Amino acid sequence: MASPLETILNPRGIVFFGANNSVTTMGTTQLVDILAAGYPGRIFPVHPTLDTVMGLKAYKSVKDIPTSETIDLAFIVIPARHIPAVLDECGQRGIKHAVVISAGFREIENKAANDALIEVTRKHGIRFIGPNCIGFYNRNISWVDPAERDKKAINTTWIPINPRNGGVSIASQSGTFACHIFITMQKSNMGINKTISVGNEASIDLVDCLEYLENDPTTRVIGLYIEEIKRGREFLKVATRITKTKPIVAIYVGGTEAGARAGKSHTGAIGGNDRVFNAVCKQAGIIRAMDLEELLDYCHILDVSPVPKGDRVCILTNAGGPGVNMSDAVERLGMKMPVFSPEFQQKLREKIQIPTAQVRNIVDLTFDVNPELMYRTLPRTLLKSDEFDAMLVYGIFGWTFYAMLEKQHPLIKIPVDDIRIMQTALLEYYAKLPRMFNKPVIGVALAGREDGAVVVLQDLGFPVFEMPHRAVKALWALNERRKSLDRIAQREKTVAAT
Amino acid sequence: MASPLETILNPRGIVFFGANNSVTTMGTTQLVDILAAGYPGRIFPVHPTLDTVMGLKAYKSVKDIPTSETIDLAFIVIPARHIPAVLDECGQRGIKHAVVISAGFREIENKAANDALIEVTRKHGIRFIGPNCIGFYNRNISWVDPAERDKKAINTTWIPINPRNGGVSIASQSGTFACHIFITMQKSNMGINKTISVGNEASIDLVDCLEYLENDPTTRVIGLYIEEIKRGREFLKVATRITKTKPIVAIYVGGTEAGARAGKSHTGAIGGNDRVFNAVCKQAGIIRAMDLEELLDYCHILDVSPVPKGDRVCILTNAGGPGVNMSDAVERLGMKMPVFSPEFQQKLREKIQIPTAQVRNIVDLTFDVNPELMYRTLPRTLLKSDEFDAMLVYGIFGWTFYAMLEKQHPLIKIPVDDIRIMQTALLEYYAKLPRMFNKPVIGVALAGREDGAVVVLQDLGFPVFEMPHRAVKALWALNERRKSLDRIAQREKTVAAT
Repeated sequence: MASPLETILNPRGIVFFGANNSVTTMGTTQLVDILAAGYPGRIFPVHPTLDTVMGLKAYKSVKDIPTSETIDLAFIVIPARHIPAVLDECGQRGIKHAVVISAGFREIENKAANDALIEVTRKHGIRFIGPNCIGFYNRNISWVDPAERDKKAINTTWIPINPRNGGVSIASQSGTFACHIFITMQKSNMGINKTISVGNEASIDLVDCLEYLENDPTTRVIGLYIEEIKRGREFLKVATRITKTKPIVAIYVGGTEAGARAGKSHTGAIGGNDRVFNAVCKQAGIIRAMDLEELLDYCHILDVSPVPKGDRVCILTNAGGPGVNMSDAVERLGMKMPVFSPEFQQKLREKIQIPTAQVRNIVDLTFDVNPELMYRTLPRTLLKSDEFDAMLVYGIFGWTFYAMLEKQHPLIKIPVDDIRIMQTALLEYYAKLPRMFNKPVIGVALAGREDGAVVVLQDLGFPVFEMPHRAVKALWALNERRKSLDRIAQREKTVAAT
Repeated sequence: MASPLETILNPRGIVFFGANNSVTTMGTTQLVDILAAGYPGRIFPVHPTLDTVMGLKAYKSVKDIPTSETIDLAFIVIPARHIPAVLDECGQRGIKHAVVISAGFREIENKAANDALIEVTRKHGIRFIGPNCIGFYNRNISWVDPAERDKKAINTTWIPINPRNGGVSIASQSGTFACHIFITMQKSNMGINKTISVGNEASIDLVDCLEYLENDPTTRVIGLYIEEIKRGREFLKVATRITKTKPIVAIYVGGTEAGARAGKSHTGAIGGNDRVFNAVCKQAGIIRAMDLEELLDYCHILDVSPVPKGDRVCILTNAGGPGVNMSDAVERLGMKMPVFSPEFQQKLREKIQIPTAQVRNIVDLTFDVNPELMYRTLPRTLLKSDEFDAMLVYGIFGWTFYAMLEKQHPLIKIPVDDIRIMQTALLEYYAKLPRMFNKPVIGVALAGREDGAVVVLQDLGFPVFEMPHRAVKALWALNERRKSLDRIAQREKTVAAT
């Protein structure tokens, strides 16, 4: 049976309740965002008095919309007390799917409103996300030609940002984690596929989302924000099945007393013990994130990077401190910094030709900024070896640095354009390294996208993080994924043998 | 006795070895950065062949510089083998202070070079930082009028950025942590006072830096990057004394095997056990940071925020998820999320007037974006109460959001300029709240300085972090400072009583 989310996230027509011509209302913002992201279906606003809403013909009631029009989804941003009547009319019209943004139900213990919502949707067999949610985002509408998808997303959230397309889909019990995150994603040009804000989960819950995303062909990584797990057994079963093919990263905030209490006020959730959740993660092969940044970084790296074959890390740097700091973090996170063999050290020394350089691992060029060495010859020599499984690189400094330097003194003349062209060619090669050698290579650059080199690399899908510890933690997530896949393979071998 | 760092960081004249007219050399970059930051003293480049270096008259030798010129400091960026002869001439000229940038000494086990350096500097009584360092930065040259200091800093590092003035001074065994950090500081307009890169510490070590910064009137917070502690007993004694009046934050990377090994290659450091360092921190009241971001964030918050009087936290948010996530983190970090009294909840409910709002603590406005409520009336009501000691705020959304929204649809007309003016006035009030109520108030905004509201607040010295967990961790550092001050007071009371 197809998931109701298949229709909800890929509607061919939407009836929209709760938008007007004032952007101070939530509904109007959401309608505008749907239009701006390039939604290719038709939208039918319903409004008691207006003739047009944001340039679209408006209807007094869903009953007034010609039956010849295809409407797959009711999108509802009106006060809770009006919702049952509206959904009743939608049901009569044969609309079986809805998004209920409005709050004022279980989370404030409004049992009457909740009961009425459940009753009317049961009566018509309507499946919906919400109430008390922010809607969804879909960068890959199933019936849109893949070549067109960059211009034809559907963004029903209130954040007017359309991030880059990617393999990461997020299902969340927090609306914020389904849309405010677009702001953060833009800062590293991280790709997103879908987000689903499940709100109070009166009809569709996280397990439904997992089942849908499991079968979604464009989703490669699943991220979850969890305040409580309603169907524990199903969650464990489905998640365990999914992680055989797609990694799951989850943040869980119901494990402390404060988190559980706050969750109850937020979506009416009752959290469980932290240790129980850790056990669930271990059993199901879920990678746990502790904060928003970890959730996004882990999803990001699992989407763009190969998984390492072991836990041996090489650090390449042109600055000592961050290298030492990263090596310290590598070991704290249970990975290894092997000392390279004398033969390999000798080979590196010949390649590097800098007397102060270090080659034992850390490989430290000590301030050298020769881009040919840093971005081509040295990484190639390193990645060809079998003495490590993944590489962390500090020292992505692009031409932006030279442009900045040139402004410092009238006598400085730097051919910034030539440097840009030369570096860009090298970086285009560099970005291919992880796939070419099938090893994770993760960059660090404090400047972020203020630096042109970072822009080139990130836009080619090569991961560059702004902070050294974020790169190490991202690698930790890849290493956890490796361990999880190893356990799965071991388990299947055991099953096959018995 | 005055610290040699007093002269090194505030030189009235510098003889510079190792710059030419090509910015591809490190020394030239450093000379240019000194000039660009507005160094108000005189610089005398020494070069064997050039007549001018970056527009400055050059000399063949330090001996050729007229003796009428005041020269306090020799700045040296030439190959290690030439350094003893140069320092000998400097010594003959009466120059007693130096910065040795050049590498190639202890860290690559070049004992001969090291011995020669030690011998010549002992002979002349020269104190110096380095070798194998990046120099220093001083935003508050002692002999420059405070009103002029914005334009007259001294930046001897190779990063051409002059951050905002502030109370944080950093002494570091990594050059990166003394200059690359300027890139990161710019992203939140964090203030800096001084940085000192101690390199191999052949003459001046971290303890010397601590003693100097202890007495530096403009330094309010001290940050340390440590690979090893050479004079353990002195370090403990000096740090314990300093933390009575100024907080110290330290990152230590020598505690793991990989970190210790890497440190040895980096600056020749031999690290010690992690547990020993933690004991030192506890004894001396040092706040330990684990990564670069923590080091900067902790220093930043300790510089700009009052210390809380207890560990009870209030979270104010207009979005559920980040609020719940922060409350979870608050408890994990050993602080408390008290449930507000029924009377106070009632008072808040009357003030807020949003039926879906939560007031138990978390105070969640649930998507409301009424700036008058969010930035003035509600925080005032909250901060007046004695039911908590510090406040975390998610929901700094400025006019930039409206500007973004306006671009989404031709029919949207938003008076962005009016909003900007109205919000700016509110934010100027808001930035005063921590001092007005003598309680920490820490903001979170995913957008960072892309949002005009964040710019206004940060430029007024109000702390806004890009990630929820960073704000919680910053508050943790303030809470650690409180506990440390409590312990000191307790200890002094005990001493007084005996």
